[in-house]
Amino acid sequence: MKNNCFERAEILCVGTELLIGDIVNTNAAYLSRRLAAMGVGVYRQAVVGDNPARLAEDVRAALSRADLIIMSGGLGPTYDDLTKETVASVFGRTMEMHEPSLARITQYFEARGRVMTENNKKQAMMPVGATVFDNDYGTAPALALENEKGQVVVMLPGPPRELEPLFRERVEPYLHTRCEAVMFSRNVHIIGMGESMIDAILPHDILESENPTVAPYCATGEVRLRVTARAASISEATALCDAMVEKLKQTPVWPFVYGIDVPSPEAALVAELAARSMTLSVAESCTGGLIAKRLTDIPGCSDVVAGGAVTYQTREKTAVLGVPADLIAREGVVSEAVARAMAEGARKRFDTDVSIATTGYAGPGGGTEKEPVGTVYVAVSAPQGTICTRYAMSSKRDRAYIRELAATYAFSDALGFLRGVADEGAEKS
Amino acid sequence: MKNNCFERAEILCVGTELLIGDIVNTNAAYLSRRLAAMGVGVYRQAVVGDNPARLAEDVRAALSRADLIIMSGGLGPTYDDLTKETVASVFGRTMEMHEPSLARITQYFEARGRVMTENNKKQAMMPVGATVFDNDYGTAPALALENEKGQVVVMLPGPPRELEPLFRERVEPYLHTRCEAVMFSRNVHIIGMGESMIDAILPHDILESENPTVAPYCATGEVRLRVTARAASISEATALCDAMVEKLKQTPVWPFVYGIDVPSPEAALVAELAARSMTLSVAESCTGGLIAKRLTDIPGCSDVVAGGAVTYQTREKTAVLGVPADLIAREGVVSEAVARAMAEGARKRFDTDVSIATTGYAGPGGGTEKEPVGTVYVAVSAPQGTICTRYAMSSKRDRAYIRELAATYAFSDALGFLRGVADEGAEKS
Repeated sequence: MKNNCFERAEILCVGTELLIGDIVNTNAAYLSRRLAAMGVGVYRQAVVGDNPARLAEDVRAALSRADLIIMSGGLGPTYDDLTKETVASVFGRTMEMHEPSLARITQYFEARGRVMTENNKKQAMMPVGATVFDNDYGTAPALALENEKGQVVVMLPGPPRELEPLFRERVEPYLHTRCEAVMFSRNVHIIGMGESMIDAILPHDILESENPTVAPYCATGEVRLRVTARAASISEATALCDAMVEKLKQTPVWPFVYGIDVPSPEAALVAELAARSMTLSVAESCTGGLIAKRLTDIPGCSDVVAGGAVTYQTREKTAVLGVPADLIAREGVVSEAVARAMAEGARKRFDTDVSIATTGYAGPGGGTEKEPVGTVYVAVSAPQGTICTRYAMSSKRDRAYIRELAATYAFSDALGFLRGVADEGAEKS
Repeated sequence: MKNNCFERAEILCVGTELLIGDIVNTNAAYLSRRLAAMGVGVYRQAVVGDNPARLAEDVRAALSRADLIIMSGGLGPTYDDLTKETVASVFGRTMEMHEPSLARITQYFEARGRVMTENNKKQAMMPVGATVFDNDYGTAPALALENEKGQVVVMLPGPPRELEPLFRERVEPYLHTRCEAVMFSRNVHIIGMGESMIDAILPHDILESENPTVAPYCATGEVRLRVTARAASISEATALCDAMVEKLKQTPVWPFVYGIDVPSPEAALVAELAARSMTLSVAESCTGGLIAKRLTDIPGCSDVVAGGAVTYQTREKTAVLGVPADLIAREGVVSEAVARAMAEGARKRFDTDVSIATTGYAGPGGGTEKEPVGTVYVAVSAPQGTICTRYAMSSKRDRAYIRELAATYAFSDALGFLRGVADEGAEKS
């Protein structure tokens, strides 16, 4: 059955390790985000254990409310992996051996020189009529089952490193083919302008546009403008989104845009530096390695990221980065002068084109009357000079949040400076 | 009603930001973990939006299956915060103003010099008969409601920085008073010995003990032995657990224990160093700042953690840490010799008592036939000398996992060396 795309989705994750709290359910967030981008609303997420009777009850309940159910977990080789069998029984289907999957799994073990135990064959058993999605990231294939009413249950393996690419590469195209209309979104990432300001500053014809729609969403340290188009094909929907992005380029929001459909500000910064063949170093005090960590989360960053110094104690700022001790004594360790000297010291010490420095109070202890917890100075040094911004975050925020936000602002400041749109010396909160 | 503690719990989180995938549901994992430690099994977690009809349906369904429902979210001041009102209607209770809460909220705003808008009073409205838990971390109090069957619904504010301390400090003691028997757990944290080895090596009378029970659980890079006792009071249960911990000290597992009820290996390391008045520096290649970041996640770490160098590019290892260029050329950048020289260089450069260094291939690119992706050398330098361990993690693991694991092993190696139980030069996988 083709319809005007799915109306309601529910996510059902199977896993005892989720119920005892040993792992956090990132799959539900990932799937919800991807479905939202397709225009499919998620009305419920649930986590249940591997009890087949309870699971069958949950699948039936979900089918009474939704037309798309995305399940994760319980596709493995052991006796308590029962997701496929349970959904098959709810749909009144029998199980059969899916030979292409059996061949793939056999090959998977052979390629790794490992013995394939008998129970691994279970992973190739499929409900009659299932659409099978090959898994290039593990052994258990994903699958979809559709009933006569056009309701679809998608089953994915639980590990995020398998689930995420499988959903993106196999399941999304499958879901697109089942809809008359497809949805496509572009995310325009903004740092340095709040949601209410964006709302006030954008022309009405943009905010009230019906296809594509343009809606702001808040995330940590940034706002995303989600541009979502509906059309008969992905290429048409993409063209509608891209035309809207062109329109946004003419608005006062544009200088605050750090990227489109980029995974993070650090990824945008590394890409910008790579395009300019420039190198980067960092000098961190309050962020304590977080900026370097987020930069080196990116595979292949080593052409750009030379390294960094975490100068957590005051004396290390002098010993490692060459910040004059009398400057620290005069200006205070959390000050614009010290942030600038740290950035310039790192640029010299690591011999890079660009450097980023932070000094501030992440709390819960520390801070002064003049520079309370939440104050962070971010400096960026580059061939054209050094800029510094003082951020005054709420002291009620927790340490982890203040550190994450300071790192995000640092990436954004560096991007802005490179692109020539940074507003030097601003005070921000 | 007193009973032999709760039998079945369900967790019900309210929040549109969870359903669109903008945030990951850490509350469900936190609550599940705390309930498991109390011996209460969580049978289902669910996330729903702020539609009151659907929410009421979910509360009723949960009450048909469980005797304890923990809810989070929807206690705020806005019109779509409807958790209390919805549960009150399911329980057939009316709402009334809770004067002590109103006084607290008024004071909260006054103390911050902020104007309290009218809608904030809504946060002090409570169902008749509710047990109210003061919130020291925000404005919305938590509450519990019990029906005539002894079923309890606990409602907590959504932000983790409010929910977590409120649950630990207010809700857990309340739940304990409602049970004839209480459960108490201690977690014994082990790094360097796998679950199956622990199972094989521990005496049968420990593994088969009925009160307290002793069960191993796997977590990233470590195994936890959860010792759980049931008794009439917390003090009795604690004594039973502590006696079992004394027994564990006599087993071959003990040298691999890095802490009891500690939040993380890095916290155990910082505490160990602080107790010895020793300082620490780090020299990171493949972990790229993650070790420094995890150390400085700990508030008040600055007496111990001096700083660190992220020498991501090869030349920085020479420029910043003084690793001889010919040593790198001869031995390779991922080698025992370079790891040792990095640790010793950092100890000198940062003038600390102890230092940790990592060099390895976190993937997905890089690696050699001899040192494939997943290979990480961890060196620890201290007054008594320098040790180095080669870790061979599976190259199928993703970059983030290999980096986290390498950091965890580094903390564990440093702890072991300080305590005199490290096994120098071992090869581990």
